[in-house]
Amino acid sequence: MEHELKLIGLSTNHELAQKIADEMGADLMPMTINQFADGEIYERILESVRGADVYILAPISGEVNDSFMEIMIVVDALRRASAHGINVVMPYFGYVRQDRKTKSREPITAKMVSSLLEMNGVQRILAIDLHADQVQGFFDIPVDQLLAAPLLSDYFLERNFTGEDTVVFAPDHNGAGRARQFASILEANWGVINDRAVQEDIKSPNGIVGEVAGKRVIVIDDIIDTGRRMVTSAKAVKYAGAIDVSVVATHGVLSDGAAERLKNCDEISQVVITDTVEVPAEKQFDKLKIITVAPLIAAAINRVRQDKDLSGLLRSRIKPDIKI
Amino acid sequence: MEHELKLIGLSTNHELAQKIADEMGADLMPMTINQFADGEIYERILESVRGADVYILAPISGEVNDSFMEIMIVVDALRRASAHGINVVMPYFGYVRQDRKTKSREPITAKMVSSLLEMNGVQRILAIDLHADQVQGFFDIPVDQLLAAPLLSDYFLERNFTGEDTVVFAPDHNGAGRARQFASILEANWGVINDRAVQEDIKSPNGIVGEVAGKRVIVIDDIIDTGRRMVTSAKAVKYAGAIDVSVVATHGVLSDGAAERLKNCDEISQVVITDTVEVPAEKQFDKLKIITVAPLIAAAINRVRQDKDLSGLLRSRIKPDIKI
Amino acid sequence: MEHELKLIGLSTNHELAQKIADEMGADLMPMTINQFADGEIYERILESVRGADVYILAPISGEVNDSFMEIMIVVDALRRASAHGINVVMPYFGYVRQDRKTKSREPITAKMVSSLLEMNGVQRILAIDLHADQVQGFFDIPVDQLLAAPLLSDYFLERNFTGEDTVVFAPDHNGAGRARQFASILEANWGVINDRAVQEDIKSPNGIVGEVAGKRVIVIDDIIDTGRRMVTSAKAVKYAGAIDVSVVATHGVLSDGAAERLKNCDEISQVVITDTVEVPAEKQFDKLKIITVAPLIAAAINRVRQDKDLSGLLRSRIKPDIKI
Amino acid sequence: MEHELKLIGLSTNHELAQKIADEMGADLMPMTINQFADGEIYERILESVRGADVYILAPISGEVNDSFMEIMIVVDALRRASAHGINVVMPYFGYVRQDRKTKSREPITAKMVSSLLEMNGVQRILAIDLHADQVQGFFDIPVDQLLAAPLLSDYFLERNFTGEDTVVFAPDHNGAGRARQFASILEANWGVINDRAVQEDIKSPNGIVGEVAGKRVIVIDDIIDTGRRMVTSAKAVKYAGAIDVSVVATHGVLSDGAAERLKNCDEISQVVITDTVEVPAEKQFDKLKIITVAPLIAAAINRVRQDKDLSGLLRSRIKPDIKI
Amino acid sequence: MEHELKLIGLSTNHELAQKIADEMGADLMPMTINQFADGEIYERILESVRGADVYILAPISGEVNDSFMEIMIVVDALRRASAHGINVVMPYFGYVRQDRKTKSREPITAKMVSSLLEMNGVQRILAIDLHADQVQGFFDIPVDQLLAAPLLSDYFLERNFTGEDTVVFAPDHNGAGRARQFASILEANWGVINDRAVQEDIKSPNGIVGEVAGKRVIVIDDIIDTGRRMVTSAKAVKYAGAIDVSVVATHGVLSDGAAERLKNCDEISQVVITDTVEVPAEKQFDKLKIITVAPLIAAAINRVRQDKDLSGLLRSRIKPDIKI
Amino acid sequence: MEHELKLIGLSTNHELAQKIADEMGADLMPMTINQFADGEIYERILESVRGADVYILAPISGEVNDSFMEIMIVVDALRRASAHGINVVMPYFGYVRQDRKTKSREPITAKMVSSLLEMNGVQRILAIDLHADQVQGFFDIPVDQLLAAPLLSDYFLERNFTGEDTVVFAPDHNGAGRARQFASILEANWGVINDRAVQEDIKSPNGIVGEVAGKRVIVIDDIIDTGRRMVTSAKAVKYAGAIDVSVVATHGVLSDGAAERLKNCDEISQVVITDTVEVPAEKQFDKLKIITVAPLIAAAINRVRQDKDLSGLLRSRIKPDIKI
Repeated sequence: MEHELKLIGLSTNHELAQKIADEMGADLMPMTINQFADGEIYERILESVRGADVYILAPISGEVNDSFMEIMIVVDALRRASAHGINVVMPYFGYVRQDRKTKSREPITAKMVSSLLEMNGVQRILAIDLHADQVQGFFDIPVDQLLAAPLLSDYFLERNFTGEDTVVFAPDHNGAGRARQFASILEANWGVINDRAVQEDIKSPNGIVGEVAGKRVIVIDDIIDTGRRMVTSAKAVKYAGAIDVSVVATHGVLSDGAAERLKNCDEISQVVITDTVEVPAEKQFDKLKIITVAPLIAAAINRVRQDKDLSGLLRSRIKPDIKI
Repeated sequence: MEHELKLIGLSTNHELAQKIADEMGADLMPMTINQFADGEIYERILESVRGADVYILAPISGEVNDSFMEIMIVVDALRRASAHGINVVMPYFGYVRQDRKTKSREPITAKMVSSLLEMNGVQRILAIDLHADQVQGFFDIPVDQLLAAPLLSDYFLERNFTGEDTVVFAPDHNGAGRARQFASILEANWGVINDRAVQEDIKSPNGIVGEVAGKRVIVIDDIIDTGRRMVTSAKAVKYAGAIDVSVVATHGVLSDGAAERLKNCDEISQVVITDTVEVPAEKQFDKLKIITVAPLIAAAINRVRQDKDLSGLLRSRIKPDIKI
Repeated sequence: MEHELKLIGLSTNHELAQKIADEMGADLMPMTINQFADGEIYERILESVRGADVYILAPISGEVNDSFMEIMIVVDALRRASAHGINVVMPYFGYVRQDRKTKSREPITAKMVSSLLEMNGVQRILAIDLHADQVQGFFDIPVDQLLAAPLLSDYFLERNFTGEDTVVFAPDHNGAGRARQFASILEANWGVINDRAVQEDIKSPNGIVGEVAGKRVIVIDDIIDTGRRMVTSAKAVKYAGAIDVSVVATHGVLSDGAAERLKNCDEISQVVITDTVEVPAEKQFDKLKIITVAPLIAAAINRVRQDKDLSGLLRSRIKPDIKI
Repeated sequence: MEHELKLIGLSTNHELAQKIADEMGADLMPMTINQFADGEIYERILESVRGADVYILAPISGEVNDSFMEIMIVVDALRRASAHGINVVMPYFGYVRQDRKTKSREPITAKMVSSLLEMNGVQRILAIDLHADQVQGFFDIPVDQLLAAPLLSDYFLERNFTGEDTVVFAPDHNGAGRARQFASILEANWGVINDRAVQEDIKSPNGIVGEVAGKRVIVIDDIIDTGRRMVTSAKAVKYAGAIDVSVVATHGVLSDGAAERLKNCDEISQVVITDTVEVPAEKQFDKLKIITVAPLIAAAINRVRQDKDLSGLLRSRIKPDIKI
Repeated sequence: MEHELKLIGLSTNHELAQKIADEMGADLMPMTINQFADGEIYERILESVRGADVYILAPISGEVNDSFMEIMIVVDALRRASAHGINVVMPYFGYVRQDRKTKSREPITAKMVSSLLEMNGVQRILAIDLHADQVQGFFDIPVDQLLAAPLLSDYFLERNFTGEDTVVFAPDHNGAGRARQFASILEANWGVINDRAVQEDIKSPNGIVGEVAGKRVIVIDDIIDTGRRMVTSAKAVKYAGAIDVSVVATHGVLSDGAAERLKNCDEISQVVITDTVEVPAEKQFDKLKIITVAPLIAAAINRVRQDKDLSGLLRSRIKPDIKI
Repeated sequence: MEHELKLIGLSTNHELAQKIADEMGADLMPMTINQFADGEIYERILESVRGADVYILAPISGEVNDSFMEIMIVVDALRRASAHGINVVMPYFGYVRQDRKTKSREPITAKMVSSLLEMNGVQRILAIDLHADQVQGFFDIPVDQLLAAPLLSDYFLERNFTGEDTVVFAPDHNGAGRARQFASILEANWGVINDRAVQEDIKSPNGIVGEVAGKRVIVIDDIIDTGRRMVTSAKAVKYAGAIDVSVVATHGVLSDGAAERLKNCDEISQVVITDTVEVPAEKQFDKLKIITVAPLIAAAINRVRQDKDLSGLLRSRIKPDIKI
């Protein structure tokens, strides 16, 4: 491999960046990052990147605007410092849900953020479970989308969530494809929750599409933000006769009291997420299982560096390292 | 005038936006602006902007990254909503001091911010007292730079700071040009403070370049950020025999305890700034005089709309409205 | 209105272009369009467009590649001939379904087509019912998306498809939102067809989500291409007890024997589409009702020219002119 | 050589692509290419191209718009799939004759096609005998233009068309340079046919510029499209006393009955072209000799891959493989 | 007409700029133009151009690099000063002959110059008789090409150069089209000079294509640079029996002793050019007639400003104002 | 090192280019460069650059417009000839002083020149002592700025200009930073000359900031253009008691009689510059010492080629080769 590999961890989810570096047996580059009292960020890279192939390991999450600008500023510094390859590994892509105009005079912020990254000189994006597949088309540069499903399904397979007794539910119609795919890995059945109906009345007879009585239920989504929809879904399937409810998602944004809400929902047995978004200690609770994506990302970077196909990776099982 | 004028005020320094609208006898457009728990901003414009000539009245200040993204997102919405002209009035331009590399592997964030605004579809910038004139060259679109000097000098002229007894000082060599120009409006003398010398020892014999004993001194800068340099300068000129010290600047960023610092500095009689950056009530104090730039900006927008030269405006006196 | 309006109709769906011109009381511009034996297209505009605001009325449909190139070539000619505004009215947007990568090494052709239009100098797109809302984000220029739902629902309202006895079905999960919205205009119920289940067995007990026995059913989609899914859906709901089945869609691509297939399906009472795609005489049949979008597009162009909001238009009812 | 070589053959002139691959001892990459009933093309590359140096072997010919879009779509797929180098080998460049405005409000389609290729991410073009040299300036990327003249002249040299008894004619003034150059390789004389004169009357006394009586004549052009001009030229020189007439051109577009026309023209002894455009079996006839450019292109790709100068290649003789 | 018209004359051919302004009854804008001792050019526009429609009247000629940079610099100033329309009237386009690669590793300077103008913000080019029509395709902005032929032919028609006794010759094959067109205006015959033959021997029997004995001959080209080819042509046709020879061209570059050479060539009766390139007094001589293009350009600007078609202008006769 | 190194020397300061090549043990590439009588430049590269990493060694100086166009034209040729890396080594950057608008309607020519280089395909700039650090932000490509200070200070250190008896002066406030830095290398004191005061009266009591009586003075600037300011400065410090005055600058533009002026100024003992700008023999004089930057540039190119950090180079001492 000709161009030296350099890994950069920024402020956001630095813990994941460190884990990825550890997986790869590499160090994060030494950097200066300051945020001044007026919010301005100052960054400086402390060793040469001339001719290097650089991977910035940074979700757009936490304070998303600070987090986004931190990425943009280091990209500017890398470009001016003659880095050869500027790759952004974005385990979580803030603003991704603003991907279309639903009313007149709205922005399409996910497209704007994509364009700004590209125009600033980013040459490749590695992302995990983008909210809508069309977001890949917001970029003209290569986007390698990784899937957390194999990691998450391993967790359930090891606990024997498989076969006829398990049903995977999407919390609304939009997630039907995701539930269908997850169910097929678990060789389980699947169904859809009629979100408008159960929001009005969790006991609604039209609330559940699919068999649920006497089943172990997994409700799957891509993002858990406030957790309200997961709580409603859990209550509805439990009311309809489920014997156990797990909820699972790739991205645990957990904003606005979500941790408390999920923790206190007796209908939910466990909450399984990955560490694409950092979960601070105060948001962690007993029922929360966090599976790291670090080995997945490390493997992806290695394959990209060796010009190997990622599609093998999408199918293979990477032994998850679970933090309970 | 063919294209309808629309004014937009965002979260940052909304007070100034309202004042500008009032000066122009116009309303700010109705808008929805939300910031979610995870920091994502959502904006929607609530009336048609099709074919309109829109002025976004928003400094990049406060939480500068949020403030910048708020501008960018509304620009995206305007472009998609068929606005005819997208103009950004940026009374204060955050990141403007990061305008060059002083060490290897630094970014030039002011250039990056300029390019992002331009690439997103902004067609004109109205700014006040940019930190370095070269920043105009960071843009390829027209930049109309207004000067606060006439407003600030009127304040002093009305209080008879003029002639031989008044000396305008720059707090370091970089500001010599600004001091020279301000002095010439006041028909006063000028000088320079040797910042490295006075930082080490305010009593340094090499500290003051210019006559100071028995004079009324005005120390002028473009930005007051932490206020430390102003306090040191004031102490130095006072020690050297000045009978009175005023400090003046266009942009009152006032971060990191600046208000307290200036308020408690007995050597400073008064602090004069403009309202390009919003000064919240808790940072205001008796000695602080805030002169509004609203009439200046309103006049500039009117002249631009009428295809009139701004250079007349730069010379003319606009009656300041002082908030004491 | 300052810039003269010019309308251009190309080879594809010229009939609709003429109807739009008639609605607006305007003429289509005289043009030369030849296609040589080797497939090359030659176009020349036969009167001045200097300073004019031009609307190209042309779906990308029929032979989609010829149709797309015909648009691109006339755009090149317009730009070089100093047209002031170059707007493309694209009632149907070929390739729109290739909007994401579902496997490695696929293109995202809908994005490519969007970018090429934009890079060639198109300044605005008027489209009807884009396949996925995210496609708007493939453009950075304004995209005014019109909705055929009001036209199509008027047809059913006038025939008393409303209230409890009517159910609107989506032929798969992806269309749930569309069915829900159409049902709400008709004040009817809605449901979803489990497409994988009914494809295997139209009698599948899991095939229908929602009440169907004794109801008048409307199956709605955005595009009818081969018509196979519509036929399967109709058979399934009829088997499940529906007393009548209408199928409705905005875009009648009708390729690969679709017309024959729908005509011969006894379970379908009527097929309602619009004329965004031209339906040649040999594909027309008794049960097929074609509603023209010409008044909708004409009204949209007029509002755009007057800088009026289109959102009013999206709600208002335009009296449809039905071709039976 | 660091970046792996990958060759792509598309639908158009796949036979030539295969020959080039054979010459290079390589395989064409496995691909899926479908064209749906509505004309939409779907392509997928079936093995990894990450980091590869890819050559797309595809003329824009046949149904030129389909052919062009097929190239564009595979380029989009390659770019998104992280190909390192995207090169298009375009033996024939459809639309190349639309390279200027001859009347108001015409497009310059050759420039548009060039720009679209470039904007889509193509990094190099290999072409053969572009219609006008200025077309190279339509691109900003490198264009390596190969010449078929050495291949074509070898054919005649081997048959002793050389010296005083041979005259090379251009069918009109525009081709004078081409005739002059070809004659110099054959060490023959040359002349020009006054096309307007002979079109009116092939016996026109002003029809032939140069000696023709008792000579073996070669009429040379870059493209034979309908073949009408070649037939007229042949008749004119035969009438004027030529003892034998060969016609030769690089690109045998042969549209609109050209094959029949040339075959039936008794004045023409033989028609010599290359295989830059595929000639289907039904257009082939006894007098038609097709010389393959595969060895020329294979050699060019090899030299480009080795960073060797192509100018040597332009002069050297490559043994032609003739299909009679 | 909404946007005010402003005319700019630069250093090169200022005389023509003044004439155009006079024709239009307008003034040239006041400007400062300095060239420092080290060659740097400084320009400043001395009155407001905000919102104005500006025409820069400047050929790229004389010291072509200085002349080109002078245009580029004023364009930069105009763009930054909020000019609405930036149009460059380029009666002569230096570097236009470097429009293709004839050997490996040559630049295509005419394309580069075109791209630089466009990238700097120029929105329209008005040119006269571009060397090759393909050069229009080097630009993506509108290029309005004017023709000097009507002006030049009027000169000859008024002197009765018409009908059978007059023959228009091209000095080489490339100019055949130009000669043919000019002859058709004069209702005269035309011919071509075999430049290689006459360069070797002006008495060459193959030197002249067309009837010449006893005729009044006009030799026409687009540019007279060193004048050598014109002298050779004149000698050849005179030797072949012409009774009188006029030479005519649009652009009189007249470099490298051309004036002396033409003046001293007894075979030439008169030299007719236009003033697209300034001819300093010391290069003028009795036989030289200079026809001004000022009325043509003034009329073109007026028509562009009124959104009128230029094609009418190309046909109409504008009374030439000849400077003898 | 994979990509072959190729060095190009153009007309301007060819002597320095040759020295750099000699330092690197390499040859300058063979090239054809002609300038025609009408000022047009023609360039052709005479050996293959396919895949090569090319460094163009050329200041923008001398006739700056010719010099700039010569660079631009060779860049166009390199890009078209498939060069892999196009780097411009610009020891002096003409127009760099036009880096901001000081009055309405001025251009920012330094930005325009930067943008044109970048848009033409230049990938890296190596420069020495740019006039203002902000100019780096005019580019988005990497700019490696070298400093001449170590070379120039070595000259003085070897002659014992160090310690208390030496004072480094800036000729105006803008240069204070430069003087401070140079003084710190020499471990000397520093001061500033009040340029407005000494221009009016070299005996002005306010003219000199800093101790001067009995000292050896070095006046430092970045550019010596006309030399007037240096002469005034020298007279002023001499009048104020300096015992010896050296003047030093990186770039010796020496226009408009500068050589004569400096030579005849008795107050100046020596003038030290580098060879970034060529000094023709007729401008050289006894007191002028020219230090070559060739070893510095050669070392920088070598380090860039090896992906090594340049910051080491900025600190290290390179033995200067002085031409006296």
